[in-house]
Amino acid sequence: MKKIIGGITAPKGFYANGKHIGIKRKRKDLAVVYSDSPCHCAGTYTKNIVKAAPVLWNKAITDEQQQVQAIVINSGIANAYTGKAGVLHNEAMAEATADQLSIDKKSVLVASTGVIGKMLPIECVCEGIKVVSQSLEPSNEAGNQAAKAIMTTDTYVKEIAVTFEIEGQTVTLGGMAKGSGMIHPNMATMLSFLTTDIHISKELLQKALSESVENTYNMISVDGDTSTNDMVLVIANGKSNHSIIETENEDYAKFKEAIDYVNTYLSKQIVKDGEGVTKFIEVQVMQAQTEQDAKAIAKSVINSNLVKTAFFGEDANWGRIICAMGYSGGVFEPSKVTLDYKSEGGSIRLIDSGEPIPFDEEKALHILKEKNLLVIIDLHDGDKQAVAWGCDLSYDYVKINGEYRT
Amino acid sequence: MKKIIGGITAPKGFYANGKHIGIKRKRKDLAVVYSDSPCHCAGTYTKNIVKAAPVLWNKAITDEQQQVQAIVINSGIANAYTGKAGVLHNEAMAEATADQLSIDKKSVLVASTGVIGKMLPIECVCEGIKVVSQSLEPSNEAGNQAAKAIMTTDTYVKEIAVTFEIEGQTVTLGGMAKGSGMIHPNMATMLSFLTTDIHISKELLQKALSESVENTYNMISVDGDTSTNDMVLVIANGKSNHSIIETENEDYAKFKEAIDYVNTYLSKQIVKDGEGVTKFIEVQVMQAQTEQDAKAIAKSVINSNLVKTAFFGEDANWGRIICAMGYSGGVFEPSKVTLDYKSEGGSIRLIDSGEPIPFDEEKALHILKEKNLLVIIDLHDGDKQAVAWGCDLSYDYVKINGEYRT
Repeated sequence: MKKIIGGITAPKGFYANGKHIGIKRKRKDLAVVYSDSPCHCAGTYTKNIVKAAPVLWNKAITDEQQQVQAIVINSGIANAYTGKAGVLHNEAMAEATADQLSIDKKSVLVASTGVIGKMLPIECVCEGIKVVSQSLEPSNEAGNQAAKAIMTTDTYVKEIAVTFEIEGQTVTLGGMAKGSGMIHPNMATMLSFLTTDIHISKELLQKALSESVENTYNMISVDGDTSTNDMVLVIANGKSNHSIIETENEDYAKFKEAIDYVNTYLSKQIVKDGEGVTKFIEVQVMQAQTEQDAKAIAKSVINSNLVKTAFFGEDANWGRIICAMGYSGGVFEPSKVTLDYKSEGGSIRLIDSGEPIPFDEEKALHILKEKNLLVIIDLHDGDKQAVAWGCDLSYDYVKINGEYRT
Repeated sequence: MKKIIGGITAPKGFYANGKHIGIKRKRKDLAVVYSDSPCHCAGTYTKNIVKAAPVLWNKAITDEQQQVQAIVINSGIANAYTGKAGVLHNEAMAEATADQLSIDKKSVLVASTGVIGKMLPIECVCEGIKVVSQSLEPSNEAGNQAAKAIMTTDTYVKEIAVTFEIEGQTVTLGGMAKGSGMIHPNMATMLSFLTTDIHISKELLQKALSESVENTYNMISVDGDTSTNDMVLVIANGKSNHSIIETENEDYAKFKEAIDYVNTYLSKQIVKDGEGVTKFIEVQVMQAQTEQDAKAIAKSVINSNLVKTAFFGEDANWGRIICAMGYSGGVFEPSKVTLDYKSEGGSIRLIDSGEPIPFDEEKALHILKEKNLLVIIDLHDGDKQAVAWGCDLSYDYVKINGEYRT
């Protein structure tokens, strides 16, 4: 597998673009992604009871339908909690895209992010869809424009592409994502879109995506809130000219490796670009009895406000980590725990077999001063593990999310 | 029922005091509470897997034993994650208290709060227990000193006493609590101690406490972390001279009303004195299908960092409330929800039957500028309800919890 330059337009047959169409004041706000041939599709969606209209639309399509050919995304208004009008607006977005591309409206997946409870200016949106659809290009530049257009208050574009070989053919997987930024401080919506020219059954495409999402996007946390609009979509047009993957053979394994790589990269980028983030924190939980325990513990630690503020304060306050592990619901034996902090500034052991180790505060500070931190929790209680990614909690998080909507 | 001046020494037969004995640098750090006759006892404890030594000690006593006669509390060091030495230190605290009061060590309940993983200076502590035990008094002033001595970075004393009548006799219930402050920014430990001269069976004492805690301390949230040391204890010496309460009769109901009142008062005081709190927020969830749904929704809303920062910013950002309801795990029908904000500045409806209502931002700001806010969520879906209490998330929360331990 090789990382290459580009994003969602890197795989064969994919076109895209992104523009400012007038939902936001200035920044780009609409993207269209298109494949010149039909694609298998798969998706994973927010578990929030309050699901935005596009989530319901896409779920029906990826659950029931074999093929799609386009994705249209607006980054101005979430179209969540907008009732029946919102459902109609969502359908209108699909229809406008379909009309321009001469495909069926049910071949168009839709995504939205932005303010909750506000109505889309639907005529303006449909007009914009027309403009963007007429400017689709297969270039990296066009893919990059689309990746820009899905951003809200993200501070940089998140895109990636990788290639690998199946039967001597080059297969490409591209992706773009938006993270926890927001125009109006309303919601930390996470959107991710993957495109690929792999030839794979719909079932295995969904399986690869679902399993990958569990260990990537579902293991990141900026503020622990699950939005009404979160989704990850992958569409595969099969243009890479190898025989179709219909069993979990070694070609499937190659794809799984690639999709894990892409999703891990995008997940980490989302955290690093989180609101007010000054530290990126990776929590590794080793030797747990079950993967579920390892995940629960890793996520509880990365979600704790007390842990997050301690990292912001560069404080080796390991008591808060032990405490967050304790209320995680994950099973472990306190007396077996080993805890290490690690960064480019060095590494330090804070707990060994459940015993606090006296440590040099100067050395700890030297490690914690770095931007990228690693927390290694070894439970010595089994052979399962998990990794979670998160960030500190800073003054700027409060500022960005506390400011009055204007 | 009548609120009176005083705290834990208000009921007949109770003595207390609190002093600085040298665990902390300057502030009071040790309290002793004593009853001149044996008490029935009951307790509820943290569900954190990592339980501090005093939690394990008390749980064994309140689970298995009929009677106790004293409580000793240090507010300097949590004695949590301190292994076998911590267990011995805890026992030494009980023993030192018992020696002074000429009672059995198993008649002494113990509580600690402060830094995790640090060892108690046990000789200093035992010496201090001697001094405090020799200065016990039944006065309100002595009770107030004890309430002061259990504080960490709490900014004010939290105590209360109420009286009610059973069989023409005056029954008194007193209480003191400490909240989310901390000397070293290590842990948001919640401790609460109730004393009463009611004559009641151990079983009903435990039942009243357990049920009351579910709707009071368990419905507050400052930062969502559950400490290794949280506990609520009640001891009842039966001195009020009425016949013993052994069934859930109307006398039991009077006691239940009193304990609910006391616990609600102390719970709210704990939230109001939370770190960096600028707003006190009450979330009422009405007409839910089950009490469990109502509680899950109320707690999810009050725990959301996005909701908390919005209140800090005085922003009528109701989308975040809907979102937090949606991922709460509680069941509700989005299209039936009504949402109101209320304060001394007025009240405003933001959602009616699932439909966002256009509102006057000026009026909303006028309401949100107040220090005490009420969020009323009506699910129109059943007849159960719940109330949760919490606070905003401010710069000062980050500051207090992010500062380096010195």
